[in-house]
Amino acid sequence: MKLASLKGPTRDGTLILVNRDLTRAVKADGIAPTMQYALEHWDEVHGKLLDAYESLECGNERHEFSFADALAAGKVAAPLPRAYQWLDGSAYLMHVERVRAARKDKVPESFYKDPLMYQGGADDMMGAKDPIRAASEDWGIDLEGEVGAIVGDVRMGATPAEASASIRLLTLINDVSYRALIPGELAKGFGFVHGKGANALSPVAVTPDELGSSWDAGKVHLRLVSHVNGKWFGNPNAGDDATFSLFDLISHAAKTRELKAGTLIGTGTVSNKDAATGYVCIMEARVVEQVEQGAPKTPFLKFGDTVRLEMLDHHGATIFGAIDQKVEKYSPPLGGARGGS
Amino acid sequence: MKLASLKGPTRDGTLILVNRDLTRAVKADGIAPTMQYALEHWDEVHGKLLDAYESLECGNERHEFSFADALAAGKVAAPLPRAYQWLDGSAYLMHVERVRAARKDKVPESFYKDPLMYQGGADDMMGAKDPIRAASEDWGIDLEGEVGAIVGDVRMGATPAEASASIRLLTLINDVSYRALIPGELAKGFGFVHGKGANALSPVAVTPDELGSSWDAGKVHLRLVSHVNGKWFGNPNAGDDATFSLFDLISHAAKTRELKAGTLIGTGTVSNKDAATGYVCIMEARVVEQVEQGAPKTPFLKFGDTVRLEMLDHHGATIFGAIDQKVEKYSPPLGGARGGS
Repeated sequence: MKLASLKGPTRDGTLILVNRDLTRAVKADGIAPTMQYALEHWDEVHGKLLDAYESLECGNERHEFSFADALAAGKVAAPLPRAYQWLDGSAYLMHVERVRAARKDKVPESFYKDPLMYQGGADDMMGAKDPIRAASEDWGIDLEGEVGAIVGDVRMGATPAEASASIRLLTLINDVSYRALIPGELAKGFGFVHGKGANALSPVAVTPDELGSSWDAGKVHLRLVSHVNGKWFGNPNAGDDATFSLFDLISHAAKTRELKAGTLIGTGTVSNKDAATGYVCIMEARVVEQVEQGAPKTPFLKFGDTVRLEMLDHHGATIFGAIDQKVEKYSPPLGGARGGS
Repeated sequence: MKLASLKGPTRDGTLILVNRDLTRAVKADGIAPTMQYALEHWDEVHGKLLDAYESLECGNERHEFSFADALAAGKVAAPLPRAYQWLDGSAYLMHVERVRAARKDKVPESFYKDPLMYQGGADDMMGAKDPIRAASEDWGIDLEGEVGAIVGDVRMGATPAEASASIRLLTLINDVSYRALIPGELAKGFGFVHGKGANALSPVAVTPDELGSSWDAGKVHLRLVSHVNGKWFGNPNAGDDATFSLFDLISHAAKTRELKAGTLIGTGTVSNKDAATGYVCIMEARVVEQVEQGAPKTPFLKFGDTVRLEMLDHHGATIFGAIDQKVEKYSPPLGGARGGS
């Protein structure tokens, strides 16, 4: 099942079902008005959503509309337009190793057993085609391509097996990062506030069964393809070189807290040991360039630059649709605040 | 104006107005169903809420009920039962100085200009009388008494003056902390995930005008009184020794992001230079004991222990009501997850 949200009428958007090839969609608000509602009432709405999804797939939904048109018109929000919790892990330690190697530092042994994880902002997630808005190019604007799980309620102390059963949907994430702000902020010791922007999610979130055998043991065994300014930038396989599965990361997140339905858990930047697979974040390319060529070459993002993240199945079909964003200079909403619902 | 939320029927609770002395209340759901809705539609609902508040105060609300009874019966949720964002600052550097002095460390000069701040979990805030639930006493369960501001929409890059205009409500916070888990977690460098539990908020949140002249320049000039197991533990003045105001902290939080309506910003643990004012967190008492007496004496909280946080006006009347919690061993909800809406 593939789910998405249209923008409005409230900040939580309107839940829609999207067919497998992402061409057609139908409102699901007769079953659940919003994605957050669906996640809180999953057992009750799941069967009804699945019925409507199959009906849409078979062309039997009279009120279907073009998802492609809605997406192109900027009407599609993030599948979960805002989340009460966003916890991002670091499953791919190659990413961490490369970054630390550039400053002649090693990855602590403990990181291979005890996942790194930070809590970030998710009160306003970007739709897949919404602009990345930053006040200054000097922030060192960067993408981070990740896979994310949206969970139902998870008890405190949940095991990885329990975490497995809690996963409702999978999505792609662009965890926008401001590289120039991060070193100073991390030196303060309390994690990220300024160093991370809003996340963008892929156009649709999908139930794990949509991935078939590519979803195995809490990992998505497919390549995450990135482009920067239309040029291929990388395609690391999210199933390779992941020290931790999403099951491990959810269990880690829940060690001392309940996770409430709608919590988003990320894998951290996907990265493979094989450097030929390229990168889904610019910083990693730059640190490899620093080590191999004496200086970083790939610039961080400037206003007007574009980034694209996508995952294709074994037949070349897009699973989640593409995150496809342009970087823009932030201008405040009129009146200094964004109005209404 | 004093606002609170009853538990149910959804996870966002039901908005109520509470009279000034916290004895009587009336549902406000005809104006705004939930606190989150009110915060998102503040300009539209504020006048109507104020009308109903004045009517309640004058005894003219036919459907009023006893707030004290509802609170005693466990029917009162946190005023904002869940928030999309919780960012906690460190305004009171005395707290940080004491903790660092115990490990013979100094506070970096930069902390006096650039606030420490971390992002925490707020998907499930505790009502003022809800139990603190931890799986183990070995976590080093501690309270942290704070003042918090709940804001409307704030633009990226907002100045302290703009931040000032964004404050909708003030509340007290118990930022539950697990001291034994924090050193290892902070050493990893990404902030808190395991080291912080859910927050409790005071029974009511109040518009700043309710504090009269005690609300000045983004600081609340009143004492935050703490009791542990019924014994006085401290009463530092939240207006003294605060290096940063809530205006500063909100502006800091908004440097690279918009803050969406309903964001909760905390001052960090209130602490005064004058040690005679005691403490609103056990760790601080322990580090002073360590320095002055050679060993910490005050134990962290055990199951069955109680903590109380309250703020009184100059006439001795409670402003926010008391956070009054018992520590309990966590037991998972039946079926491994909490059901329904």
